[in-house]
Amino acid sequence: MFRKILIANRGEIAVRIIRAARELGIDTVAVYSTADKEALHTFLADEAVCIGPAKSTDSYLNMNAVLSAAVLTGAEAIHPGFGFLSENSKFATMCEEVGIKFIGPSGAVMDLMGDKINARTQMIEAKVPVIPGSDGEVHTSEEALQVAEKIGYPVMLKASAGGGGKGIRKVEKAEDLTAAFESASSEAKAAFGNGAMYMERVIYPARHIEVQILADQQGHVVHLGERDCSLQRNNQKVLEEAPSVAIGKTLRQQIGAAAVRAAQSVGYENAGTIEFLLDEDKGEFYFMEMNTRVQVEHPVTEFVTGVDIVKEQIRIADGQELSFCQDDIEIKGHAIECRINAENPAFNFAPSPGKISNLYLPSGGVGLRVDSAVYPGYTIPPYYDSMIAKIIVHGENRFDALMKMQRALYELEIDGVVTNSGFQLDLISDSNVIAGDYDTAFLMEKFLPAYQEKQ
Amino acid sequence: MFRKILIANRGEIAVRIIRAARELGIDTVAVYSTADKEALHTFLADEAVCIGPAKSTDSYLNMNAVLSAAVLTGAEAIHPGFGFLSENSKFATMCEEVGIKFIGPSGAVMDLMGDKINARTQMIEAKVPVIPGSDGEVHTSEEALQVAEKIGYPVMLKASAGGGGKGIRKVEKAEDLTAAFESASSEAKAAFGNGAMYMERVIYPARHIEVQILADQQGHVVHLGERDCSLQRNNQKVLEEAPSVAIGKTLRQQIGAAAVRAAQSVGYENAGTIEFLLDEDKGEFYFMEMNTRVQVEHPVTEFVTGVDIVKEQIRIADGQELSFCQDDIEIKGHAIECRINAENPAFNFAPSPGKISNLYLPSGGVGLRVDSAVYPGYTIPPYYDSMIAKIIVHGENRFDALMKMQRALYELEIDGVVTNSGFQLDLISDSNVIAGDYDTAFLMEKFLPAYQEKQ
Repeated sequence: MFRKILIANRGEIAVRIIRAARELGIDTVAVYSTADKEALHTFLADEAVCIGPAKSTDSYLNMNAVLSAAVLTGAEAIHPGFGFLSENSKFATMCEEVGIKFIGPSGAVMDLMGDKINARTQMIEAKVPVIPGSDGEVHTSEEALQVAEKIGYPVMLKASAGGGGKGIRKVEKAEDLTAAFESASSEAKAAFGNGAMYMERVIYPARHIEVQILADQQGHVVHLGERDCSLQRNNQKVLEEAPSVAIGKTLRQQIGAAAVRAAQSVGYENAGTIEFLLDEDKGEFYFMEMNTRVQVEHPVTEFVTGVDIVKEQIRIADGQELSFCQDDIEIKGHAIECRINAENPAFNFAPSPGKISNLYLPSGGVGLRVDSAVYPGYTIPPYYDSMIAKIIVHGENRFDALMKMQRALYELEIDGVVTNSGFQLDLISDSNVIAGDYDTAFLMEKFLPAYQEKQ
Repeated sequence: MFRKILIANRGEIAVRIIRAARELGIDTVAVYSTADKEALHTFLADEAVCIGPAKSTDSYLNMNAVLSAAVLTGAEAIHPGFGFLSENSKFATMCEEVGIKFIGPSGAVMDLMGDKINARTQMIEAKVPVIPGSDGEVHTSEEALQVAEKIGYPVMLKASAGGGGKGIRKVEKAEDLTAAFESASSEAKAAFGNGAMYMERVIYPARHIEVQILADQQGHVVHLGERDCSLQRNNQKVLEEAPSVAIGKTLRQQIGAAAVRAAQSVGYENAGTIEFLLDEDKGEFYFMEMNTRVQVEHPVTEFVTGVDIVKEQIRIADGQELSFCQDDIEIKGHAIECRINAENPAFNFAPSPGKISNLYLPSGGVGLRVDSAVYPGYTIPPYYDSMIAKIIVHGENRFDALMKMQRALYELEIDGVVTNSGFQLDLISDSNVIAGDYDTAFLMEKFLPAYQEKQ
């Protein structure tokens, strides 16, 4: 087993990884920016190396600085967590080149799944259902009209070389398509030097269902069931749960098998998530994208399966075979995660960094877990993501889990900064959420307007 | 279901019960002494009633004050926790009389199991193995010699009406028996007005193995496997685990069945624990006593079975049938609990009350739970038990659990008072403990002398 690993991240996920490594008897190296000198991950690791100033691009995204820290401390592997360098294929390849194991898939696989058109083609080959759309690139507005006719409106135009929201247009009807195509294509050409587009039908509202998979170096791929992440604000997940109330036993097997085929078809290694959109009325699911890293919401899956995903990531990277097979995985009970963010729901969720003067994190009892990187007296820096804690509960059933979450949110006390805990409490008390009756439109279009009116 | 219950306790177990009740949607009433005005249980409950001054006899042991609080607040049931009034049959009966449900067995059953000779006779009838000893009372030293000859030395002489360590003598050989009998019997007569004695063979060292049972009002009794509580200092448990490395599958079934018979034979209701001594060499176990309440160490059983024992206690008291049967209970993985006490191992574990200036309780990751009633700035009063937190871990196997405990103890930070956390860290790092090779003599006779020499 590795003797020492470096954690190329900060916040609760860095702490989570340090804990898993320590439980495996592995020494840990933290990296930190000057803004994170007093951060929990900096304190908790066996060693900590400063890699630059507060700005992420100068520190946590600084590939050379991170790699140097690993080389200098003799770390044998790097865990990237999520965000930052976790889906950076160049970084993964650089690690390979200097003989440091990147805890995740190879750079080549990341590139393949990162390119939307390639990933789509790959999935079609693997017989994984994809969103009805164009077969590869669309070069003219006439071609676009034909494709839209076939797949049906509304459609989404996306830049083939896209990213960052550039070159994207939603088109509701045929009259608007030509103009939208021309403008999106020019935008893409300006931004990426490539005006090629592709098209997909808009599946909205839907259920955002994602399947966790683990794949070892020996070619075994196991899925750990699904998570329902439909409750989103501006495409950011707010509350996640496992299993999904929208998924029955048969559908679980189908979607799980599709996720396994997806991973197998690209020779995937390590933990990954296949995101699907589920059209509940039709009972059909469509491949959306693959996240080639651990997810924020991995603990809900850990609770219902008993598998420690982060430890498995490290074991897999170390070359160990998975110690379980698909039949060993049983979904037990129900788990829910609420993300606690230092943000102000009354001011359009504006970030609320600052000093935590007083802190009581819920604890104790059966089936409660809090992953966090804050402590009393800690100052949340303004430079990074506003998520400061994750409250995860595991109940005998969904109702029990909701009651536990209510108890936990009731106990939570964070003074000095504004958080969304009251918003989360309202959300889990909403009759639609209690009934499990929600989709990707619910939070933005139904819950939030009513919430804001009430304030 | 009950709408409101009163918790007749303090500290972490009061907090534990408040949390369970809240998760069941039940309102809670805390009682507190003047010394506990700032205690967590006082803050967390929906209502809190002061029941008297700091001294336990004037508050937590004051039956009238507790009952009045329940009547005045309209509580429908009382959960006694452990210690204090939890095994007081008079209190249980008083509750019955005023129509408040006592969450535990009836006063009559408590009396039956509280009387050592009666309990022994009862167990023999239920075909539960008891420690070889006298058939009932022994009235003369001649009779005592005959019994000792039959059961073998060393023997323990115990006052039939005994308690509080009075009228007890350990006798190693026949020459010493007559004198010991006379002195113990006189002591008993002076203390209890009754000089009658009973005798048992001394089973020492042994394994302290206890079996958790749950019994509903409909007569169903299920056991939740065993805990190994052999690591004790002055008969106080220090570290507990489940399952026991000394118990194989067959023995587990035998000892579990014996525990179920014991409970059934007395018409037991609610949660209880049957304590046994296991002679590992002979593979024989003997009934020691029954604890008619929830135990400090119940969380290790909760971790390996997934059953929430405190919630089950409340459901049972409410008249609900157990929702599972014996075959549903499966022991998964391994759990360990370390008791964190505010005490100084360097000064013979003298209590160390005072103000907690700084606090970081371990958290996060898979399979960690901390039950505690402390918070930063909290002042531990000097009047009560020194236990301030319980760290409980659940691993895939025993080694994994030990690694998790090490990680948790490493993270724990309590400033302002001295605790035994370093002692616990040393204990779980001991090669005998790691190997699971310990008995009731180990901590006092082997570990502690070496530990003290090292200090």
